Amino acid sequence: MTHSYSVAVLPGDGIGPEVVGSALEVLDAAEQRFGFRTERSEFEAGAQHYLRTGELFDELAEKLRSQDAILFGSMGDPHVTPGILERGFILEMRQRFEQAANVRPVRLYPGVPSPITGLTPERCELVIVRENTEGAYVGRGSTVHAGTPNAVAMQESLNTRAGIERVVDFSFRLALGRRRKLTLCHKTNILVAAGQLWQEVVNDLARLYPEVEVDYVHVDAMCFHLPLTPERFDVVVTDNLFGDIITDLGAVIQGGLGVATSANLNLSGSAPSMFEAIHGSAPDIAGKGWANPSGAILSLALMLGHLGEGDAARAVEAATVQVLGELPALAGAEMGMSTSEVGARIAELVASGQA
Amino acid sequence: MTHSYSVAVLPGDGIGPEVVGSALEVLDAAEQRFGFRTERSEFEAGAQHYLRTGELFDELAEKLRSQDAILFGSMGDPHVTPGILERGFILEMRQRFEQAANVRPVRLYPGVPSPITGLTPERCELVIVRENTEGAYVGRGSTVHAGTPNAVAMQESLNTRAGIERVVDFSFRLALGRRRKLTLCHKTNILVAAGQLWQEVVNDLARLYPEVEVDYVHVDAMCFHLPLTPERFDVVVTDNLFGDIITDLGAVIQGGLGVATSANLNLSGSAPSMFEAIHGSAPDIAGKGWANPSGAILSLALMLGHLGEGDAARAVEAATVQVLGELPALAGAEMGMSTSEVGARIAELVASGQA
Ligand SMILES: CC(C)[C@H](C(=O)O)[C@@H](O)C(=O)O
Ligand SMILES: CC(C)[C@H](C(=O)O)[C@@H](O)C(=O)O
Repeated sequence: MTHSYSVAVLPGDGIGPEVVGSALEVLDAAEQRFGFRTERSEFEAGAQHYLRTGELFDELAEKLRSQDAILFGSMGDPHVTPGILERGFILEMRQRFEQAANVRPVRLYPGVPSPITGLTPERCELVIVRENTEGAYVGRGSTVHAGTPNAVAMQESLNTRAGIERVVDFSFRLALGRRRKLTLCHKTNILVAAGQLWQEVVNDLARLYPEVEVDYVHVDAMCFHLPLTPERFDVVVTDNLFGDIITDLGAVIQGGLGVATSANLNLSGSAPSMFEAIHGSAPDIAGKGWANPSGAILSLALMLGHLGEGDAARAVEAATVQVLGELPALAGAEMGMSTSEVGARIAELVASGQA
Repeated sequence: MTHSYSVAVLPGDGIGPEVVGSALEVLDAAEQRFGFRTERSEFEAGAQHYLRTGELFDELAEKLRSQDAILFGSMGDPHVTPGILERGFILEMRQRFEQAANVRPVRLYPGVPSPITGLTPERCELVIVRENTEGAYVGRGSTVHAGTPNAVAMQESLNTRAGIERVVDFSFRLALGRRRKLTLCHKTNILVAAGQLWQEVVNDLARLYPEVEVDYVHVDAMCFHLPLTPERFDVVVTDNLFGDIITDLGAVIQGGLGVATSANLNLSGSAPSMFEAIHGSAPDIAGKGWANPSGAILSLALMLGHLGEGDAARAVEAATVQVLGELPALAGAEMGMSTSEVGARIAELVASGQA
């Protein structure tokens, strides 16, 4: 029996189409070798599309909902007012599709230089799980006396037991299959209401996972521990806003946005999960072949793992890691190969069974 | 005429008394050489004091209010429930004494190793100004259905035009005397209400400081730019919570908590400003002579500058930087000198006019 999966492909803006193109070439190779199939539907979305049509997530939602997974390039263009795509597309998808967990592996791959002196791959192998649907990202607030010297802006962070529970439970299960350590990252000494609820959920669920060691680190202290002692962490779970911040720090440590990747997981099966590289649309280098497709290809590996094609996922990741180690630089003219050459090389390693 | 200043000294817990002791020895030397005087009053405060007496900031407030400045060691002890001292003392002082600006220089001193590969002192010379009295640090929120599966916690961030304005105006003035660049760090695309108010204040005040170039960086992107391209920044202004996070990242870059220092400035003269190293009380190494007093001594330099003793401030800073460059390690048994030897050496350089 051949498994077949429906995959929505959203190349987006800037370098998005290039890196997604490479990812699809690698997907072809994986299908051939591992004997599964994907039915791909490509959708226009992003800044260019919005400028042409005014359409954001709303118009796409129903078409995407029936898909097994979404492979996402990148979005953004200086001509679109900041906030429009973020709130109208990215957050809208995360919230409407209940992509409750934003999962970002922080791994230093062999041969990829970290800006942190002396950091080695063995010491840097963790996953950050970010709550992806609530907290400060509800984006609600109110302003009184706007435009006057007495203006006051109140910004809200809404945290529900249900929302926290699903992402913490997922994190415990993830830790069970790894080094069995879960660290909560928050600022419970200051954000008392939200912090208490987070800590309470972690404490309650810890009883169900006695094999998992539980730890806590303040978000400010995380800025120390993550770069200097990443070996301290296995799975880190945190709220939406803190997750946004510390995952970018994680990407720095592992050698930059070019190699960082993420999954936006729907944990209940009610809607598709979404997989994307972490880098932006980089309009300045679009079309030059300077973009590193590794982030996008690693997001493909996460997608394959999620769909249940574990062998294919591992092969794609291994091939990417091998090629990353061969590149003289991680992006730009100095990368030594073009975007499509990197993709082709990874596809070749996957197809030939060398990885 | 001899200037005389009243200084409240709060050594606090753990290594606080040791490092403050060294700072006072350096202050003696500075007074001798530069011909000013301080009248010092020492106050017990911190975890030990709280455990003995139950007293927090409230009991000290009126005694401290009349002082010209406060020199602060560090606070904290595992026996005190997290949150008590933070909210009952530190935040209470910042808010009641209207210490509106938390100023943290991020400088890589020559001879101090940064964990960031290839970072040089010339590229790392910036100041982060953190709003210090409001935002998420109002610590207010509410929880409904606590203890049930339907629990919801709402956490508030309160931002006033007046509170933002005073710290942004201070930052513009600071930038005028430096490289004339001000960067706002926020997350305006998500935290819309608070973000709009911050951006509005920066835009409005920018008109009064046309010589200052204004820039904006999202807090997540700051995790990239701060370690990798700190030369991009001169003065960074940000809100209370983001400031808490990115100043710790700043401390990492400049070589760690041992050399990082901060001023909590009252900008109106209504109450004293407070000066402290950034490190905690480190109870595990207290009394061993392993603590580096440089952070505390650099906070003394900030205090002297604030009191108007600019020559003394510069001499104390220069002497500290010189000795920092001589230490084989920044703390611990490998520091090569004890806490008091480091202090004595810095004091000697100040007294002898060699720095
Ligand atoms: C684009 C933006 C809305 C988004 C976020 O803030 O979550 C991004 O920074 C991320 O981390 O995926
Ligand atoms: C101790 C704590 C309340 C404090 C804060 O969160 O502001 C500390 O982290 C700091 O940065 O000064």
